[in-house]
Order: sequence, then structure tokens, then C-alpha cells
Amino acid sequence: MRVATAHVDGASRAVRIDGARATALPYAGVGELLASGDDWASRAAAARGEQFDLDGLRLATLIARPEKIICAGLNFRKHILESGRTLADWTTYPMFFAKYSRSLLGPYDDLVLPDNSDRVDWEAELAVIVGREVWHADEEQALAAIAGYTVINDVSMRDWQTRTPQMLQGKTFERSTPLGPVLVTGDEIDDAHDLAVRCWVDEELMQDGSTSDMIFSCAALVAYASQFITLVPGDVIATGTPSGIGGARTPPIYLRPGQVMRSSVEGIGECVNRCVAPEAGR
Amino acid sequence: MRVATAHVDGASRAVRIDGARATALPYAGVGELLASGDDWASRAAAARGEQFDLDGLRLATLIARPEKIICAGLNFRKHILESGRTLADWTTYPMFFAKYSRSLLGPYDDLVLPDNSDRVDWEAELAVIVGREVWHADEEQALAAIAGYTVINDVSMRDWQTRTPQMLQGKTFERSTPLGPVLVTGDEIDDAHDLAVRCWVDEELMQDGSTSDMIFSCAALVAYASQFITLVPGDVIATGTPSGIGGARTPPIYLRPGQVMRSSVEGIGECVNRCVAPEAGR
Repeated sequence: MRVATAHVDGASRAVRIDGARATALPYAGVGELLASGDDWASRAAAARGEQFDLDGLRLATLIARPEKIICAGLNFRKHILESGRTLADWTTYPMFFAKYSRSLLGPYDDLVLPDNSDRVDWEAELAVIVGREVWHADEEQALAAIAGYTVINDVSMRDWQTRTPQMLQGKTFERSTPLGPVLVTGDEIDDAHDLAVRCWVDEELMQDGSTSDMIFSCAALVAYASQFITLVPGDVIATGTPSGIGGARTPPIYLRPGQVMRSSVEGIGECVNRCVAPEAGR
Repeated sequence: MRVATAHVDGASRAVRIDGARATALPYAGVGELLASGDDWASRAAAARGEQFDLDGLRLATLIARPEKIICAGLNFRKHILESGRTLADWTTYPMFFAKYSRSLLGPYDDLVLPDNSDRVDWEAELAVIVGREVWHADEEQALAAIAGYTVINDVSMRDWQTRTPQMLQGKTFERSTPLGPVLVTGDEIDDAHDLAVRCWVDEELMQDGSTSDMIFSCAALVAYASQFITLVPGDVIATGTPSGIGGARTPPIYLRPGQVMRSSVEGIGECVNRCVAPEAGR
């Protein structure tokens, strides 16, 4: 099953997507759907409601206000190597940093480049969406708590990210992180660890990785995080980016106004975000 | 003015505190009060409502679910030195990390020591509470956006904190971070940068610092954070801890079941949290 959050008649609405048609669900978004009870998937699959052509629908940030966005850093082998690091240093424990929910952006929204950073870089990733409360889980329990998967681009302001040893300030710029377009439930994904993860800037393919390159699996990341905090429905776990970021190139390249950033995960879909210059005064 | 969040008749309620009396305000907590409009302070000051003896009132986490908890690290000179670092490396930019709201704990709640960490350490701090939306502020605008001040203890699981270069996982354990007991508005604080910050474990004074030792002032931290994300009413900015943490002692010492951790900021109040062993199975 595929579900999304859409703008319908000036409000936000969860929808189920079947081919080219979308059916409205009685929730303000996928976050509210997931929080509605552990049987959310069977209810959403059976629901009848107003129907729309997907073509005419404007999709919104998949989950507007997750309680938590937990991002894995340095979880793809080739990305560790391109950053000049040694693999063996990153295989013992997952590394996590946070984003605040206000950093999220819709899958087709403009990415307004901030006027106080000139190193805005892309990081296409597979995101795991939590479907039920999970605490001190093993990997099997963690897998069962995963509602499904979507696409995230962990857009990073490299200048701010590297000002101090803690990455947060470069990772959580306002409205910088596309999330969506759809949540695909696990039963529709053959193998979450054999999916192409790609990022294009205009027509140039910048990242062309695979989730088979991950060190810690989706279930391992969820299980590990649940050792220190309770994960709840709607929580977003960004699983790390493959190689091909702009900052690791020679010379480094970064996003510029007018470019289009396209982030895709095989079997899920893509976010397409046009980069625009900030308006004067903002 | 002093306001707090109290447990009243099984629900959570904002109260104004006048001496030994508390007056109920029509909000579920201080977070809701602050979000009710920029004139929250004058409305709260004028409000009449049910009255209680402060003595009989159980105070709750000051703000149960802030949108953001932004923590400054290494912002006190003596703490930088006790950690073996060089002052000059930490004076250019503030360093921030995050906590999730689920990490907060009431000012008098038991601190359940997790069974998967044996290096639970204290960090008493002054916390700034944001009172109005603030974006791209200078320090004067930032100061005007501060609703007031409270006490936080940025309790840190040092073993988890140091597993990877990103501190998050050691800083955001479930129900680990006391916040409260009261919000004191800025007009009641002579000088926020001349307040004693202290932490006792049982009767031993472990931290005895002053906010005069801060590198970046409260307004500077708020102004800096507002350069990358919009701060909103109820956001919590932890301003960093003074020297005296357990992990920097020789030998290091950490919290043990049965101990009482007392965190105080001059002119505001104190959080008193008893450390207890986890229940079997949790």
C-alpha cells in the first residue's frame, strides 16, 4: 500500500494511492493516520472515501511534524571512504544526529537557499517511518514496528555543519529537508537493503548508490535507537546517504539557484525540489 | 512573575505563583500559556482563578513538549578547561546539540537510571525559554523574545555520548532531563549573567559555577540559533554547564541508585530528583 499527505481544498489530508487514483482517508496526514492505532494499515487499505486523480493532487510533506527525526550519519561504506575516513571506525555503533521537524519540506516544494550559507549540499536517503511504539526492541521487533519507507534528502549546509564538532546547526536549517512523496509499506518492498538511492542535480546524476552499501540495517538502526528512547508512530529514521555528495568532490560543488534537485529511492518515488534564491530581506 | 505547570485534579495546569500561593491559569501548562499570544505575560499577571497552596501542589515538567530543545555545549570556560580542551577553540561559534522532548523529566520526579548505562552524569544549567517567534534576530531582538529562565539538568550518559562523535544518543535518554520548577520572567532577574549555577549529589556540592563564566550570552545563543531555524514560544535553550561534572573527576564518579541530584540556579529555584534503579525488565 502507498499512502501520502495531500493538500485538498486548502487543508492537509491523508490519501491512499492506487495507481493513478487517490482516495481520501479521514486523517489530516500520514502522521495522524499512523498515530490512529496499530491497525492503521488494514483500516487504510479498506477505507472508502472521496477520490481524486493523483495527477491533479499537490502532495505535501509526508509527515509534517514527526515527534523525532533521527538521522544516521556515515552509514554507507562508500560515503565513509569518500569523506576520507576509515571504515572500521564506523562499524561498532550507529552515529545519530537530529533534525527539528520545522526543517522538513514537501516533496515538490521549492528549496529556498539560505542567504547565510553558500555550501548547500545534497544527501538522498532512504527513510524509515515508525508505525508503532517501540522500546528496547531487538531487530525482529524493530522490523515489525516499521510502517514503511520513503525518500528524504538530508540537505546539509556544510559551512555550518563543520563550524563545530556537533553537526546539528548545519543539518536543521528551516524548510531544507524534502520528505516524501509517499510512504510505501514494507510488504511492497522486496528487499529494503537492495534499493537504488539516487540524486540528480538538473540532469546530472550525482549519487548512484544502493542500500546494500549500508552498515547498519533499517531494523538495526531502529533497534539501537529504541535502547535510549521510545520510538512512536510517525518518527522518521534517515538511514544515511550513499557516496556522491557535492562537498567530497574536487573541487566541491554546491546547490545554486535555478537548479533542480531530484532525490529518488527505487520502488518508492522521488522528491523534486527547485532551488531558489532567498527573497530580499529573508 | 513566576509561572509553573502543576498536576491539578489529575490534569496538567499552568499556574501563576505569588509567594506561597498558586493561581490556576486557563492553560494546560506553561507551553500552552506561552503559545497563547505575545501578550501572555500581561494576561497571566492579571488572571484570577482557583487558588492553591504551593506547598500542596505537585509541579510537573515546566514545558512538557517543546517544539525544540537546543543545547549549547562547551559554553562555560571552566568546563572547557576541565574537559582538557583549549578555550580559544570554542569562542568563535556556539556549539549546539539536540534533545527530544521525550527526554524531559519533572523537577521532582524520580530519575530512573537506565540499565544500559553506568556513566550517568549531571550538568546543571540555566535554561532560556522562548516567548515569541524569532527569526534572523540580532541580540536585542533575541533578548526581547526571551520569556524567562528556568533550571535544566542536561543529564548525560557519558558512555553513549562518546560512542560516536555526535553526542545525541548520550544526551537524549528517555525521561532523563529535569526541567523546572518555575519560569521566572526576565524582569525579575537582575542579571542573567551573574547567577550561581549549582549541583549537589546528596549533600555534596559538585558544581558551583556562575553564568558569568558563559562564553555566549543567552541573547547571543538565541540570536545565533535564529539564523538557521525559527524559534517559537516554549522552545528551550540550555545554555551549557559549568565545571564540576562527574566524568571530569579523578577518578570519574557517576550517579548511583538512592542518590539525590539537586540542580539549582540562583533566583529561580531547584530541581530535586532521586536516582532510582530500573525496575526489572525495563
